[in-house]
Amino acid sequence: MEEVLQKPNINTTPIELMPDFRFAQSVDCVIFGYDGGEIKVLLIESDLPAYKGQWSLLGDVLHPDEDLDHASYRVLQERTGLSNMFLEQVKTFSAVNRHPAGRVITTAYLALVNVKDYQLQRQEHSLHWHSVSEITTMAFDHKLILDTCLLALKKKIQEEPIIFNLLDKKFSLRQLQQVFEAVLGIEFDRRNFRKKLFTTGMLKDEHEMETDVHHRPGKLYSFNPAAYEKIKGNSFVGLQF
Amino acid sequence: MEEVLQKPNINTTPIELMPDFRFAQSVDCVIFGYDGGEIKVLLIESDLPAYKGQWSLLGDVLHPDEDLDHASYRVLQERTGLSNMFLEQVKTFSAVNRHPAGRVITTAYLALVNVKDYQLQRQEHSLHWHSVSEITTMAFDHKLILDTCLLALKKKIQEEPIIFNLLDKKFSLRQLQQVFEAVLGIEFDRRNFRKKLFTTGMLKDEHEMETDVHHRPGKLYSFNPAAYEKIKGNSFVGLQF
Repeated sequence: MEEVLQKPNINTTPIELMPDFRFAQSVDCVIFGYDGGEIKVLLIESDLPAYKGQWSLLGDVLHPDEDLDHASYRVLQERTGLSNMFLEQVKTFSAVNRHPAGRVITTAYLALVNVKDYQLQRQEHSLHWHSVSEITTMAFDHKLILDTCLLALKKKIQEEPIIFNLLDKKFSLRQLQQVFEAVLGIEFDRRNFRKKLFTTGMLKDEHEMETDVHHRPGKLYSFNPAAYEKIKGNSFVGLQF
Repeated sequence: MEEVLQKPNINTTPIELMPDFRFAQSVDCVIFGYDGGEIKVLLIESDLPAYKGQWSLLGDVLHPDEDLDHASYRVLQERTGLSNMFLEQVKTFSAVNRHPAGRVITTAYLALVNVKDYQLQRQEHSLHWHSVSEITTMAFDHKLILDTCLLALKKKIQEEPIIFNLLDKKFSLRQLQQVFEAVLGIEFDRRNFRKKLFTTGMLKDEHEMETDVHHRPGKLYSFNPAAYEKIKGNSFVGLQF
C-alpha cells in the first residue's frame, strides 16, 4: 500500500487506488467566557495516562456521519448543556506527533458563552473555568491551540460584533468596555470608547438602569443585530496595515 | 468497534480504545495570480470518473510523515516548481459526502504567486490559469473552497501587506491599485489610494521609471518589509464594524 500512498495527486488517482483512510479526525473547542474582569476558558482534566493531571480542551473524535461543525456543536451541547452559542472554526492542527495514539488531526473551534448561562445549566463537575492568563501548560498541543484561538478572538472582536456573546442580554457601557479590555489586554479612553460604539448604531437603549452595583448605576443597552446587518455589507474597511 | 467510536470524549478514552483511524486527510491549494487585469486561479482537469472534464484545485493526500503545511508546500513545489510563495491555511472542509471515495477531510490553503514566475518555471501542461470571475462549476466542493479562499483573500489584503506577492518586485502605483481593485471588485479614487499607501511607509522608491508602457511611465516602487515590521505590533486597529 505504501506505493499507492506515495502517488502525487489525489486528482489523478482513480477511486479504487485511493490512499489509506488512516487518519483520525477530532474537534477541540476553545470555550471562552468572561467573569470577574477576566477572560476564562472551560477545561477538563485529561484522563490520558500520558497527560495525567494536565488540563485539556473539550473535544471528541469526528463520527462517520457528521461534519466538523456538527461535531463541535455536539461536544458543546453534550458537555455544557448549552446550545445556540457562538461557534466558529479557527484552524486545523496536524503536527505528526501531536497525539500519542497516532495521526489524530484536530480542528479547533472558538466558542463564546455567557458564564452565567453555563453555571445554570452545568451537570458536569469535571469541567472548570480557568483564567486564560494563568495557564502555562496543557495536554497535547492544546496550549498552542488555546493561544491561536485567543489571537483569533482578539482579531475577531474588532471586526464583528461577537463580544456580546460574553455578556448578559442587557449590559452597561462600563461592562462592555471591561470585556473589550480584558480580551485585548489594553485600556481604552472611556469617552472615545463610548463615542466609537455609539457611532456604530448597534447599541439599543433599554431605558433601564443597572441595579446592585457598587458604583453609580449606568444605563443598560442591548445589541441591535438589525443595525449591524445594515453596515455589514461595507466589506472594504480600508487598509489596516 | 462501533461501540468504541460512539464514546463521547477523546479525552476520557484510554489510548487502547481510541476510535478507528478511518478518515483520509488531504490538502487543496487555491493558487491565485494576477494577469491582464484579472484575478486568476491555477486549476487542473479532474481525472476522477465522477468529475470527468471538470476543473479541480491542486491537491494531494497527507502523507503519514508530514503535517498539513508541509503537504501543501510539497504540492505547490511539485506541481508548479515554485518555492517561497505566500501560503496560508484557510479552512477545513468536511461535508460527509464531499468525496466519492469516502470520508476525505480536506484543508484549504491560499497561495499567491506571480504569474510570470510560474510561467517561467512550469513543466506541467495540464495546469491552466482561469479567470476567477468566469468559473461556475468545479469538481468536488472545490467551488465552495475557491469562494471561501477568495473571500479570505479580500479580507487579508486589507489587513496585511500580502498583495505584493502577486506583483513583480518593482511595481508602479497604477499596477498596485489595479491589483487591489481586481481582488476587491471595487474602484478606488486614485489620489486617496496613493495617499493611504504612502502613509503606511511601506513603499520604497526605487528611483526608476516604468518602461514599455502605453501610458505615461510611472515611478517604480518596492515593498519595504522593515517598515511593516514596525507597525505590525499595533494589533488594535479599532473597531471595524
